[in-house]
Amino acid sequence: MPVNLSAPENLLPIPGIRLGIARAGVRKPGRKDLVVMTLPETATVAGVFTRNRYCAAPVTICRKVLASGQPVRALVINTGCANAGTGRQGHDDALVVCSAVAEAVGCNTDQVLPFSTGVILERLPVDRIVAGLPACIDDLDEDRWVSAAEAIMTTDTVPKGVSRTFEIDGQICRVTGIAKGSGMIHPNMATMLGYVAVDVAVPQPLLQALLQEVADASFNRVTVDGDTSTNDAFVLVAAGGAGRPRVDRAEGAAWAALRAAVLEVSVLLAQALARDGEGATKFVTIEIEGGRDRGECLQVGKAIAHSPLIKTALFASDPNLGRLLAAIGYAGIEDLDVDGISLWLGELRVIRDGQPDPDYTEAEAAAVMKAPEITIRVDLGRGTARDHVWTCDFSYDYVRINAEYRS
Amino acid sequence: MPVNLSAPENLLPIPGIRLGIARAGVRKPGRKDLVVMTLPETATVAGVFTRNRYCAAPVTICRKVLASGQPVRALVINTGCANAGTGRQGHDDALVVCSAVAEAVGCNTDQVLPFSTGVILERLPVDRIVAGLPACIDDLDEDRWVSAAEAIMTTDTVPKGVSRTFEIDGQICRVTGIAKGSGMIHPNMATMLGYVAVDVAVPQPLLQALLQEVADASFNRVTVDGDTSTNDAFVLVAAGGAGRPRVDRAEGAAWAALRAAVLEVSVLLAQALARDGEGATKFVTIEIEGGRDRGECLQVGKAIAHSPLIKTALFASDPNLGRLLAAIGYAGIEDLDVDGISLWLGELRVIRDGQPDPDYTEAEAAAVMKAPEITIRVDLGRGTARDHVWTCDFSYDYVRINAEYRS
Repeated sequence: MPVNLSAPENLLPIPGIRLGIARAGVRKPGRKDLVVMTLPETATVAGVFTRNRYCAAPVTICRKVLASGQPVRALVINTGCANAGTGRQGHDDALVVCSAVAEAVGCNTDQVLPFSTGVILERLPVDRIVAGLPACIDDLDEDRWVSAAEAIMTTDTVPKGVSRTFEIDGQICRVTGIAKGSGMIHPNMATMLGYVAVDVAVPQPLLQALLQEVADASFNRVTVDGDTSTNDAFVLVAAGGAGRPRVDRAEGAAWAALRAAVLEVSVLLAQALARDGEGATKFVTIEIEGGRDRGECLQVGKAIAHSPLIKTALFASDPNLGRLLAAIGYAGIEDLDVDGISLWLGELRVIRDGQPDPDYTEAEAAAVMKAPEITIRVDLGRGTARDHVWTCDFSYDYVRINAEYRS
Repeated sequence: MPVNLSAPENLLPIPGIRLGIARAGVRKPGRKDLVVMTLPETATVAGVFTRNRYCAAPVTICRKVLASGQPVRALVINTGCANAGTGRQGHDDALVVCSAVAEAVGCNTDQVLPFSTGVILERLPVDRIVAGLPACIDDLDEDRWVSAAEAIMTTDTVPKGVSRTFEIDGQICRVTGIAKGSGMIHPNMATMLGYVAVDVAVPQPLLQALLQEVADASFNRVTVDGDTSTNDAFVLVAAGGAGRPRVDRAEGAAWAALRAAVLEVSVLLAQALARDGEGATKFVTIEIEGGRDRGECLQVGKAIAHSPLIKTALFASDPNLGRLLAAIGYAGIEDLDVDGISLWLGELRVIRDGQPDPDYTEAEAAAVMKAPEITIRVDLGRGTARDHVWTCDFSYDYVRINAEYRS
């Protein structure tokens, strides 16, 4: 039961980018589980990937392809199998898939980015994926974003996608993104899987810089369970094309418009992961201000977001201030003066100078906590830096989903 | 439902140390919730306390008393209220209690160590505690350790206590310890408290060094939920007394015997916390070896012990190797070579050189995971250091206990 999140009805096509979906039976028969995305020759591509040392074979290949500077012509994404912890065999399996895609779309193997998500430590069913490719190719169309968002789901309960328009020099531009992820969500440099495309031309180095900035402000601020996945990947495509605006420098109105649009779509996708977090019943925004630097604000935000005691209290709509203060206290700021801390639940100040604010009532606090969306704001009272984290609660369903996942 | 843990039937008295228990009605009427422990003049006392910046008033006072070098003559412990987040008022309240204890046992206020555990952010009910003291004093006896173990429980389902004997120069010596805590750390209702006493004389600085070493190898190796409490305290008392052996140096057979006995009791008490962890159905030992140093072994052990995905898989008896490898991968060892990793469930090697060991079967792994006690052993393959962590699983009951606690 996602929190205030519904499936996208329509996503704007990005001219030149085509998507094809198939039911390849990677893990279970009958469900959409394979996506091919083809890019125009004018496209540039940027990517950020998991920092988990146990990264999956496709992540390793993506890094290599992007580092080579070769123009990327296609992406291939499968669910059901993460191709992680599969060693040399996993690497070779992913290459076989890339090679089949390259042949089908008419490019080189090292112009294809592979992505996998699903169960770890199982061998990629290369035969079934390759057999499913012709159906993907037949299906290729610019208007398949919603279908692709459905195909990349695993424990997600709703597909996630956002489109926006923005203006550069009077020209209407489009940005469309899709993402998946519900558990094992604590992206470190990227998300489970996220793909955002714009119909603007951007040189690759600038696109990569934009992506890194946006990833940091969106997917890197979400956590469901603190578990950083083996397969996180977040990709930004600038399709370019005849007559499309070109953004060449990180300054000016065009850059600002592009940056704002990509950021908005990415933040909404990132928030969607927490709204649809495994077993989530609450969407929680944690805002930390008054820190000496952003790092310590993020530290405190993550301590709160990862505390099982706080997450179960959120599930119970319990304004349990003791657990919040304890998490702030153990977040690792060695010289923190707890007498300087203030804390708000929504607009309600409940802690002032480290102790309960005499002006609020338990009933008021309980009312705030009952809402499906809760903002917890902490003022550390020691500086001007601020940061934020989005998360969800821990419910019985989180235990059920993860206890039953493989059975 | 604690895992292989039953209440102590008998604990050995430590001559000169007397305990008295009362029902003071601190939070709920009718339950044992107040303990006074008096020490002989020959006793030395060492203590280690929470590193949470939001530490409770009694923790601050204990630190001050121990730093002053004054001989400690009494301890007073209440459950039901943690006296944390209570500011100056909390400090003064704790001093009032210490002063009443001092008057009752005939010592100075700054020779009394106060301890509180229970709900955070509520004012200590000083009147009820002071009113309960005469009953504690009347009850004072050397043979009250089991009763004291019961009185300090909060969400614990069984009292925790261990006694052992050991020999120094042919003399039989005793060590007795009690502890409470259903997680290493529970900011709201519980916190960890541990008290161990020996009938040996040990100078305070040596006792403090011993305590720190033992705390590090016992209580600092347990985690239920990763939440560091505001009130954690672990105290070691060397009662000394006429004719008792004296250990003056950290070397030789007497030191070794003392150290081994205190360590054994403390480790069993620490393990008891995880065995009785909130909602626990499994007791889990995580052994990390082959690290470059102990720090990185502990890092990996804690990443595994704190992962909600692994803890829910443990609850389901699911040998989910992917989640284990993912946690090892994100534990923060930047140059970890995952191809060097091996992993055992019990005696069964399931990962070899970073990939599934071809010689084990899923049925064998499932059988290991079904047991109430599970050892997960990881060889990082990059050095000779080792370390370990004890923990428990995450069950529906963990969510229930923590979602319903204040309702």
